[in-house]
Parts: sequence; C-alpha cells; structure tokens
Amino acid sequence: MKLATLKDSTRDGKLVVVSKDLTRCSEVGHIARTLQAALDDWEHVSPRLALVAEGLENGAQPYARFHEHDAASPLPRAYQWALASAHQGQPLIRQGASDSFIGPRDAIALADPAHGLDVEGDVAVITGDVAVGASEEDAKDAIKLLLLVNDLSLSGLDAGEADAGGLCIRPKPSSAFSPVAVTPDELGDAWHGGKLHLPLLVSLNGKPVGKADASAGFDFARLIAHAAKTRRLTAGSIIGSGAAPGAQADGAAKTLSLKAGDRVSVEIRDRTGHSIFGAIDQLVN
Amino acid sequence: MKLATLKDSTRDGKLVVVSKDLTRCSEVGHIARTLQAALDDWEHVSPRLALVAEGLENGAQPYARFHEHDAASPLPRAYQWALASAHQGQPLIRQGASDSFIGPRDAIALADPAHGLDVEGDVAVITGDVAVGASEEDAKDAIKLLLLVNDLSLSGLDAGEADAGGLCIRPKPSSAFSPVAVTPDELGDAWHGGKLHLPLLVSLNGKPVGKADASAGFDFARLIAHAAKTRRLTAGSIIGSGAAPGAQADGAAKTLSLKAGDRVSVEIRDRTGHSIFGAIDQLVN
Repeated sequence: MKLATLKDSTRDGKLVVVSKDLTRCSEVGHIARTLQAALDDWEHVSPRLALVAEGLENGAQPYARFHEHDAASPLPRAYQWALASAHQGQPLIRQGASDSFIGPRDAIALADPAHGLDVEGDVAVITGDVAVGASEEDAKDAIKLLLLVNDLSLSGLDAGEADAGGLCIRPKPSSAFSPVAVTPDELGDAWHGGKLHLPLLVSLNGKPVGKADASAGFDFARLIAHAAKTRRLTAGSIIGSGAAPGAQADGAAKTLSLKAGDRVSVEIRDRTGHSIFGAIDQLVN
Repeated sequence: MKLATLKDSTRDGKLVVVSKDLTRCSEVGHIARTLQAALDDWEHVSPRLALVAEGLENGAQPYARFHEHDAASPLPRAYQWALASAHQGQPLIRQGASDSFIGPRDAIALADPAHGLDVEGDVAVITGDVAVGASEEDAKDAIKLLLLVNDLSLSGLDAGEADAGGLCIRPKPSSAFSPVAVTPDELGDAWHGGKLHLPLLVSLNGKPVGKADASAGFDFARLIAHAAKTRRLTAGSIIGSGAAPGAQADGAAKTLSLKAGDRVSVEIRDRTGHSIFGAIDQLVN
C-alpha cells in the first residue's frame, strides 16, 4: 500500500491512497482524514485503506490523477522525528524538529549564505505505538511505513552550536520527505533484516552524484528498540537511519553542500526501474 | 483564562476551561475538542473560550468540579518541545521528545536505578505560529499560554551519550507539565519583560528544597526569536526557559537527583498564596 498527503487548506493535508505506479490516487476521508489519524488507529484503518489500494490496482476504485508536486510530506507535521547517527559503532539517536516539514517539491529557503547548507538523503520509517523496553522483534512489527527524507543542516551555524554540546535547534531547518510513504510489503525482497537493500539515487543539478546503499544505515528494528529503551514512542514517530559505521567514508554521495540556485533530488527505484516513493526534488533559494 | 486537558479515552484528551481558583471547569468540545485544535485556530477560538472563562467566574456557565489529578499534561503530545540552556551567556535551544508527555500526577517509571534521574522544574510557554525570522516583539505576541514543566533526564545514560555529541533521545524520558496552562493576562504584573517574576516552589518528599526565581531563565521573547531564526515554529510549540547564565550556581534548588520512592512537586503561587498552574506532583517508581 502506498499513501500520500495532498496539500489543502488544512495544517495536516488530505490522506490519499496512491497506485503502485504513482499515477493515480483515491481520497479516503471517509476512512481517515489524515495520515496521523490513520496511524492513531492503524489496526482498524489500515485494512480498509488496503482495500482501496486493491481497488486502485484492479480498476474497481474511482480515482484522480496523482501528481507528486501536489503532495506535502506524508506527515506535514509529526509528534516525533528522530535521526540516528553512529558513534563508535553504536547508534545515537537525536531528536529533530517535527512541527513543520516542508513538501518534497518545496524550495529550501536559505536565509543567509553564511549559514551553509548540507543535505543528506536517507531512508526513514514511520512507527506505530512502541512500548517502553520493546524487543527488536516488537520494534520490527511497529514499522508501518517507509519513506525518504532530505535532512537539512546549516553547517555554518552548526559548527558554533555543536561545540556547545550537540544538536541544537537553529542549525536544523525543516526537513522534507518523499511524496509517498509505503508499507514494507511493497518493497518485496529488497526489505529484509530491517533494512532497504536498494541504491539511494541522489542528483545535484540534474547530475547523479552517488548511489549510496540505502541499507548502509542501522537496522531499523535495532534503532527503534534503542529509542524505546527509556520511554514509549507514539504512533506517527518518524525514525531516520542515518549513516552506519564506516558509511561516512563515501561522504560525497551521502552529504552534499548546497548553495542558492542548486537543485537536489533523492529517489529510490525498484529493480525494474520504477520510482518507489516518488522523488524529493528541491531548489535552494 | 486557564485551560486544562482532562484524560479520556483519546490520545489528546478533552479541553476544559478552568476557573481562576482551579476548583471548577467547563467542557468546551463545541468550541475546540483539544488544546491543539484551539491553538491551530487561536484567533477565532480563544475569544470564545474567554467567554466561557468569564461565565465560570460570574456563575453563568454550567460547570463540573475540577480535580488536578484528572488532568493530563495540557498538550498530551505536541509537535515541538524545545528547552533552552545557557552557553557563554547565549541561549542554546535543544529539541526534546514531544510525542508522549506524562500527566502532572503520573508516576515517573525508572526502569533501572543505574540510569539515574535528574528533575528540573521550569516555566515553559506554548506558542502560536511564529514566522521564520520573527522579531522579539512578534515572538512576544506569539506567547499564548504559560505552564510549568518537570524536565527529566537520565543522568547515568546522559553522561555516556553526552560525550558523543549532545542531547540524545535515550537520556530524555517523557516530561510532565502542570495541570493547567494560563494566558499571560492571568499573571498580572508578575509577567513582564518576557519573564514570570515569581518563585518556583520545588518540594522533595514534602519538604521545600528551594525557591528558584522563575525569572532566572531567558526572556521568552528572545528565546522564541532565537528558535525561529532559521525556520518557522508551528502553533502548539512548547519552549522551556531553562537556566539563565549564572543560575546554575543555585543548582541544588533547580536540579534534583531522585531515586525510586521519592516524590517531587513543582508549583508557583501568586502573591496571595494561590496556586496558579496547579501542582506537578510525581512519585518515582
């Protein structure tokens, strides 16, 4: 099942089910108005959304054209966005700002060139409820959706504030996520061991700059269990895999430094060449 | 106006308007089901809530008894929780976990005594929407509500993860907020210069352990403008003032180290001795 959120006049947008080929979508306001509402009651809501998805594929379901540029980030705002990084082989998970994500085709506003801008494409998951102390097995079951993220950092500000003890609020502007989020079953055998085994295609100004392995980050089940060690995670939490130990070595492909006028895109294609999540494609201005 | 969220079967609880003396409350589901819904449309909703508050004081409004122990944190989950601290006289604002707060009378579950537990009572504000680059004047206008917070840290875990570059997710379990959040006008002349000029009363196992000055932290207008320097803040963002430069000197009164069986309470009283926000009162187990 593939889900997207269309921009509308509301803060949380409008949930739609999207066809596997990303060309058609169906409104599902009668089932759940927003993706957060669906996640809040996933056990009851997701089977109903799956029936709509089935109808979209077999022609039984009324549909509209789906345009990736009409999509907001699947959760335009979320209760949690946490991003992993590696430290001495262990995951470290930091809290990011989740109150206002920008859309996958929205421009990145760089207020001051001196702030610098680093972008890192990544895979993330959206969880259901995770109990405190959850096992890795429970954590794996809590993975409801996967999506892509363009994680932004203002490297110029970061340098100063990082010295002062870590990731602060100012160097982290709003991130953008892929137009579409998908359930793990959409990924077939490319999804195993808590990782997505496909190349992450990153382009700068239309030219490919790297095929980072999307499975280079930590196993998501391990990350979620790690994050839930001391408190529960609420449905709709987004967890990013970050870079695995050693993955920083191919940094050119993972982290890009951008300036005004640059355009960055991030996408993952399946083994037949079709885009799975749609493309994040953002201009810096 | 004083607002609270009563626990019910939903994730976000039920918004009520509370009388100034914290003894009575009125349901306002016909105006806004939840505090987040009220904040999402504050300009239209708050005048209607204010009429209910007026009716509660003059006897025109039907009411029920208000019991602080029935209250959840005013926002049981929020899109943002950011806490300031001081570094070389400048504010540093870090993102905290906001996906699941515990209630003001809920026990603090300490999974492992080796994790350690530090508690710091503090004042926080809930903002409306704040535009990127907002002035301090605009930031001041964006302060919709004030409340108290019990900010928890697992000092045993923190020591290890702090070395690795800052505030990570595991050392920060869910915080609790006061039973009631109040609009700035409820604070009279104790609210000026973006600070609340009253003592923060902290007790450990029923004994007062300090009267930290609630105005010791940074000016909230400055903090909000600082946080909004590189991105907008969405309505319902909670910002904590943290400790001001130098305030760490009276650390004993601000930060407490707790163990299982301890009970901590945090409250602020007005100049006539009445509790403004109700009391956070939590047992560690």
